Amino acid sequence: MIDQNLPHVVILGAGFGGLRAARALAKQPVRVTLVDRNNYHLFQPLLYQVATAGISPDEIAYPVRAILRRQKNLEFRMAEAQRVNLAAKTLETNTGDMPYDYLILAAGGQTNFFGLDAIARHGFGLKTLTDATNIRNHVLSCFERAAQEPNPDTRRTLLTFVVVGGGPTGVECAGAISELIRLVLSKDYPALNLKEVRILLLEAADRLVTHLPASLGEETARSLWQKHVEVRFGAAVENFDGMRVTLKGGEVIPTHTVIWGAGVQAASIMDTLGAEQGAQRRVAVLPTLQLKEHPEVFVIGDAALLAGEDGRPLPMVAPVAMQQAETAANNLVRQMKGEALQPFHYQDPGAMATIGRNQAVARLGKLEFHGFMAWMIWLVVHLMQLVGFRNRLVVLINWAWDYLFYDRAVRLIEGERCQE
Amino acid sequence: MIDQNLPHVVILGAGFGGLRAARALAKQPVRVTLVDRNNYHLFQPLLYQVATAGISPDEIAYPVRAILRRQKNLEFRMAEAQRVNLAAKTLETNTGDMPYDYLILAAGGQTNFFGLDAIARHGFGLKTLTDATNIRNHVLSCFERAAQEPNPDTRRTLLTFVVVGGGPTGVECAGAISELIRLVLSKDYPALNLKEVRILLLEAADRLVTHLPASLGEETARSLWQKHVEVRFGAAVENFDGMRVTLKGGEVIPTHTVIWGAGVQAASIMDTLGAEQGAQRRVAVLPTLQLKEHPEVFVIGDAALLAGEDGRPLPMVAPVAMQQAETAANNLVRQMKGEALQPFHYQDPGAMATIGRNQAVARLGKLEFHGFMAWMIWLVVHLMQLVGFRNRLVVLINWAWDYLFYDRAVRLIEGERCQE
Repeated sequence: MIDQNLPHVVILGAGFGGLRAARALAKQPVRVTLVDRNNYHLFQPLLYQVATAGISPDEIAYPVRAILRRQKNLEFRMAEAQRVNLAAKTLETNTGDMPYDYLILAAGGQTNFFGLDAIARHGFGLKTLTDATNIRNHVLSCFERAAQEPNPDTRRTLLTFVVVGGGPTGVECAGAISELIRLVLSKDYPALNLKEVRILLLEAADRLVTHLPASLGEETARSLWQKHVEVRFGAAVENFDGMRVTLKGGEVIPTHTVIWGAGVQAASIMDTLGAEQGAQRRVAVLPTLQLKEHPEVFVIGDAALLAGEDGRPLPMVAPVAMQQAETAANNLVRQMKGEALQPFHYQDPGAMATIGRNQAVARLGKLEFHGFMAWMIWLVVHLMQLVGFRNRLVVLINWAWDYLFYDRAVRLIEGERCQE
Repeated sequence: MIDQNLPHVVILGAGFGGLRAARALAKQPVRVTLVDRNNYHLFQPLLYQVATAGISPDEIAYPVRAILRRQKNLEFRMAEAQRVNLAAKTLETNTGDMPYDYLILAAGGQTNFFGLDAIARHGFGLKTLTDATNIRNHVLSCFERAAQEPNPDTRRTLLTFVVVGGGPTGVECAGAISELIRLVLSKDYPALNLKEVRILLLEAADRLVTHLPASLGEETARSLWQKHVEVRFGAAVENFDGMRVTLKGGEVIPTHTVIWGAGVQAASIMDTLGAEQGAQRRVAVLPTLQLKEHPEVFVIGDAALLAGEDGRPLPMVAPVAMQQAETAANNLVRQMKGEALQPFHYQDPGAMATIGRNQAVARLGKLEFHGFMAWMIWLVVHLMQLVGFRNRLVVLINWAWDYLFYDRAVRLIEGERCQE
């Protein structure tokens, strides 16, 4: 049993940051309650593979209780956080209020539709497991409907897939849809005319993967073109009614499918702090990751706004969240002991994006890679990080199978279908 | 391309019967359209393992198009059949009417709640993939809620799981829930008091697994008791409001969970034929599996009513459906050639049910097995039958993992939660 007299640390969010923070406090004289709305940790970097029927949901989602089973000073609670009450020091959730002595907010991010409600309603985000299975069900049922559709215009509309946003999410998703269609579905639908299929990647700016060097952005666009993805620069989406996308400038693209990878923002609970927020709702923190005027509250990861050495806000990526988790946990312990706190310094491990079979772009430190070499790096890095040995093995088998046989395992349509 | 002048065979249902019939017609001078509401074949015998978080949905569901990719005279259509128009020789579906020269109805079965609407509304069937994931989500979130519930009565209600029906579905489900809880969840929820958990198996008659010899029924009940499943005979459910089950005789059991394995019936489309129907909606067929007065229509599997050698209706099990598929396909070809049709004779391969780790009951011909030996037979038979090599391998890994580490891979709560 956990000693209830120990200081109580509540961690909100079982993502990369929250899990790491929980682990960092394992041997400390505190009791930890980890709160998440889901009972699983989601390996978000591979979400697009669930969306494109490459792997199954359980291969990238792992029960939190199983991950942290050996940590004796920790309790997990599945609950939806609704509000942080800084004055009363409680986290309010749908299953009751949780008093805390220390709070680590690792609430992560959510899709940012920038107020385009029509896209939020008819399009798909790609941040949650449900998003991913919705996309899978939708894309596959568009093909089923197209197979029975005599009218060529209706068929072309069903077979047009629009991905918005040239960041890693958009690039990976567009590349994976192209491979799903050209390598797998083309065999499932022998009567399908591949010329009727369109995959568009719309980017409002004039380059892709801006978190990578410009040369890799060029490489990415070239690879996508080779996969018959129409990459469109300066293309800003204005509206989508489920039948057609309208771009700024008036162009209209008939389609039932818009996948929105064009924006993220901090989780909406960050609005309840009443604290200073910057772009994308992120809450400004001290270099020690504490909330100004609330030294007992730490904010890490996507939800935190802190400038890096170049003066720009640190990116919303897993390595930032994980490194900040270590710093926040350390500072929390130092604070309990009355020691001086330390500022956060980000060690940038690099960045990458995969475009498909054998193709990726990656920067490690100052080294740039593209093509097969980058893809191997991508594969190893992601497999190493996947939580749980069994998942790693099963994912590896699925990938090996796909690789050898150009197949996709999980092309099941469950629930939500392609609508008019 | 398929020769459109060939006689058109429409097969309704991509279950064990429909798939086998489609394959049996592969080399025949016909064009085949296989219709199913789902794009996958479901390996129903392992559904209860999805419901109890043992394996993931895609391990028992395999895309029909992938299974039948090499069959050149076949087209697949994902559509919901709505009505058979025997006079016009069309199968009416939600995507349009399909004219046929020959029709093979392999529509399978669905849950039979025997008019108990309250149970249909608040309880769970176990016939579809959605049923299974609903049960998984529900059972796991009952545990999450119980972990946060201070009131012991409310907690006991959350932790009471009622399975109705002592056939293989009920037995397998109750046994698997017991193992999920005692071997896995007990570790996930260290504060859980196992004495607050109840699993009840309610059977209206006075024995279990009536399709097996009485001695194996006794063995099954004994094994379930050892797994702390309360087996209740003569217990008929009268009502369930989502909070409590009422039995005939007035007994009330507080619970949020009723899994209904007490009845199946032929798919509702069989009502649209206007043909003679027996118990469980099954449509009476000639020994040649043809519909009386409609020699061009064959009915097979769960949907067909035909007496076996003992004069009783053949059971609604996969071996009957698969053997009838062969006979129906043969008779269809004979009819085209003007040859005499042959009556169906069932070769009973035996029957089995698994009760859990190392424990099953099986009859092969006249031989009876129970315990570890029966379990090994069960394992081999099911692995052999699983469609698709990759699924078999992944399922084997999952099973081996569970077996060695007493773990369950797929304890994810997605979507539907445990409700009040």
